[in-house]
Amino acid sequence: MEVMMNKKPVLDLTATYTDLYELTMGQAYFLAGRKDEPAVFDYFFRKNPFKGGYTIFAGLPDLLAVLENFRFNKDDLAFLKAQSFHPDYLAHLKGFRFRGAIYSPPEGDVVFPTRPILRVDGNLIETQLIETVLLNTLNFQSLIATKASRMRLAAGDGLLIDFGLRRAQGLGGYHASRAAIVGGFAGTSNVRTARDYNLRAFGTMAHSYVQSCESEIGAFRSFAAARPDDCVLLVDTYNTLKSGIPNAITVAKEMEGRDYRLKAIRLDSGDLAYLSKRSRVMLDEAGLHYVRIAASNQLDEYVIRSLVAQGAPIDIFAVGTSLVTGHPDASLDGVYKLAWTDGHSVIKLSETVSKITLPDKKQVWRAINGQGLFLGADVIGFDDEKNIDMMHHPFVPHQSFALDSYRIEPSLRLVMAKGRIVRDPPPLSQTAQYSRERLEMLPAEYKRFENPHVYKVGISSRLKDLRDGLVAQHRG
Amino acid sequence: MEVMMNKKPVLDLTATYTDLYELTMGQAYFLAGRKDEPAVFDYFFRKNPFKGGYTIFAGLPDLLAVLENFRFNKDDLAFLKAQSFHPDYLAHLKGFRFRGAIYSPPEGDVVFPTRPILRVDGNLIETQLIETVLLNTLNFQSLIATKASRMRLAAGDGLLIDFGLRRAQGLGGYHASRAAIVGGFAGTSNVRTARDYNLRAFGTMAHSYVQSCESEIGAFRSFAAARPDDCVLLVDTYNTLKSGIPNAITVAKEMEGRDYRLKAIRLDSGDLAYLSKRSRVMLDEAGLHYVRIAASNQLDEYVIRSLVAQGAPIDIFAVGTSLVTGHPDASLDGVYKLAWTDGHSVIKLSETVSKITLPDKKQVWRAINGQGLFLGADVIGFDDEKNIDMMHHPFVPHQSFALDSYRIEPSLRLVMAKGRIVRDPPPLSQTAQYSRERLEMLPAEYKRFENPHVYKVGISSRLKDLRDGLVAQHRG
Repeated sequence: MEVMMNKKPVLDLTATYTDLYELTMGQAYFLAGRKDEPAVFDYFFRKNPFKGGYTIFAGLPDLLAVLENFRFNKDDLAFLKAQSFHPDYLAHLKGFRFRGAIYSPPEGDVVFPTRPILRVDGNLIETQLIETVLLNTLNFQSLIATKASRMRLAAGDGLLIDFGLRRAQGLGGYHASRAAIVGGFAGTSNVRTARDYNLRAFGTMAHSYVQSCESEIGAFRSFAAARPDDCVLLVDTYNTLKSGIPNAITVAKEMEGRDYRLKAIRLDSGDLAYLSKRSRVMLDEAGLHYVRIAASNQLDEYVIRSLVAQGAPIDIFAVGTSLVTGHPDASLDGVYKLAWTDGHSVIKLSETVSKITLPDKKQVWRAINGQGLFLGADVIGFDDEKNIDMMHHPFVPHQSFALDSYRIEPSLRLVMAKGRIVRDPPPLSQTAQYSRERLEMLPAEYKRFENPHVYKVGISSRLKDLRDGLVAQHRG
Repeated sequence: MEVMMNKKPVLDLTATYTDLYELTMGQAYFLAGRKDEPAVFDYFFRKNPFKGGYTIFAGLPDLLAVLENFRFNKDDLAFLKAQSFHPDYLAHLKGFRFRGAIYSPPEGDVVFPTRPILRVDGNLIETQLIETVLLNTLNFQSLIATKASRMRLAAGDGLLIDFGLRRAQGLGGYHASRAAIVGGFAGTSNVRTARDYNLRAFGTMAHSYVQSCESEIGAFRSFAAARPDDCVLLVDTYNTLKSGIPNAITVAKEMEGRDYRLKAIRLDSGDLAYLSKRSRVMLDEAGLHYVRIAASNQLDEYVIRSLVAQGAPIDIFAVGTSLVTGHPDASLDGVYKLAWTDGHSVIKLSETVSKITLPDKKQVWRAINGQGLFLGADVIGFDDEKNIDMMHHPFVPHQSFALDSYRIEPSLRLVMAKGRIVRDPPPLSQTAQYSRERLEMLPAEYKRFENPHVYKVGISSRLKDLRDGLVAQHRG
């Protein structure tokens, strides 16, 4: 495709794309004279989605693009004025820009619960005001990229296409189609997202097309005439094996006479394993080995896995609802927690020990084994801890794990400095390739759907001492 | 609030917000010289969400606003050109406008499976091209309005506030906050949607605010100073009953000294029933009967119902994830099916009898009983069938139901003519009021969460004869 990426987003995300309390807290900071006080926040989640063993990190370039342009326009300021915000604070917001720093892994990396995925350094107001849009963007795209990745694992050699826009959560469909690519999908039916992100757009035909014509074969003929070099015929409007496939074969033969080739047939109802096998035989017997079989209708990673296991000769899986809504989870539980402010580490206590936050400006180190695979251990520590030989369970006392024989790599890298994107994002195809490589570095036991092995996330001795000291101080 | 609704569409939803196949079918119609052929499509769904007994219809004004402005811009046409669409068709798309008619119930009405919710009359191309945006908009907003309505039924006298933007499905959060109002929510934390739809914006404070201050009481004092007339204090950062509530009481008393009143405290963890009761006692003993209790943390209609049943003195329920994602369903299964084209009724057959579509240009009649309540019967028939005395089960033979003693009202009314909105939408508060009234007309047995009574949707004798004739003709 020759079209350049269009950077204008579908929704004009100004700085009121946020929760009101970010603004009320901002006013309190402002009126207390604390607007320049430095702060550090962590973004992390507590549970992998879909009972899985990993999460694909996605949405970073979209977030950074929004943050570079995050400001209050005239309509925003008028609305806030009507909400009785203080005039001095409103004057401050008028010139507001996010000028902080952000550290994160590259988009597409595999990430795990508890460990910081993103670290935001800035002043109290700016780090607070971006909370909502940050969570909204990263939680959702990571959820969908992870769902897509699971389907990619299940689909064998099959091509995966997103057909979900009609069942997507409103405008959420826009970024769902993008996140699906990060997770391994080949393209989308969603024209707008394909346009804006330079993706491959796919489409077939609907039942309405067949119904609107005098006959099924007439419908196939006119459709083939209109789009001879990209023709996919939907064969289940009346009866797949008695009518749809025979008519498709007739039209495919007619197309051959004009030097065109029917690309595929699509099955959208019935038993997809049985119908795809019977269709393959009928197509092959007609010498149409090249005609591919596409299947749709309530697919998810489990149905795809089952179809592959049954040897269903499906070449293209078109997935809708379960992909774009991340069903059944529908959300990733990411949170954004203050870790450091104005020279001191901070902590949030909780009756639930796993909800006690980890203080200070942290780095995450990932252990790599001798074969170049992930060992299954991320250690939360500090930037200058380049030789961590021991990690501790973050919550369970006296559980530790020796790391001294492994290489470790830093996970959080500078991606935004002084509110500016450090480098242009790679093309989405490159991000998808990176994600595939990282997922290949993750041993199989973390990728199985049923009871996956738990990837260890621990804390360094220094972080443990700091955290335990703060807990004792607050409780003591 | 004094701010006028901002009429500028915040969404740049051009006509490529669609699936590619709508466009390829459009090209096939165009090249076959069928662009002016008339067509009628029905929008309907097959199953109420959440195992419930009804669905709240929502999203209509947003859909109509998009359709009035649905056109292909320069970027769209450049992208389609790169997809090898035919030059003559691209020239047609350049001037494309939707000029069809739409019939529907008012937004906020209670609707049921199988029956047409919307009827679209126009030419083949325009009725086809709008399919995706129509489904995307109505499926999602109806899902969320229905979820909100269930929480409204559960919450008794409690106020419901949407806090979901951070866990919403990306930009889907924008319309989720709107749809929640249709279903009975009082306001939202989502500032942008509040700005654009003239809603009440609500907010409290985050744990980070408390953590960023030297002490919890210091945090409460500075927050109260910054927003004395709209102050809600979050009391669970360290210990709700030993620290948060006592500190909130101290600050409330200090505020009284300055003639201000603490509005509420917020509980966000722990056992909300226990903590709200204990907090109420402590506040009351301090003479702070007017301080309200807000609660958040993974609420849904079942948790809210349980809290109310336990007598938890919670005045404000702040609901996030389950509301804005419509968890656990995450989608409404609405479809868009061709019913009539160019002078003849059309039908889609299926091995599954319930998936055989209903042909022709239809009306839906709703039966009202002598008490002015819904009888529990919608009949699908025709505009001129004002005296339907019998309805038939749409799929099960020989099941019918006499209607002759009831009043019937037409459900589908003209809302768009020649591509123009017939009348301005009412304010959202009026839509919410209408929805509440319609839900009150629905007897209680259809509204219970467990095994609700099934609202009957039937077909008239005339429609049954037409449908059965077409099936016989296709199968014969």
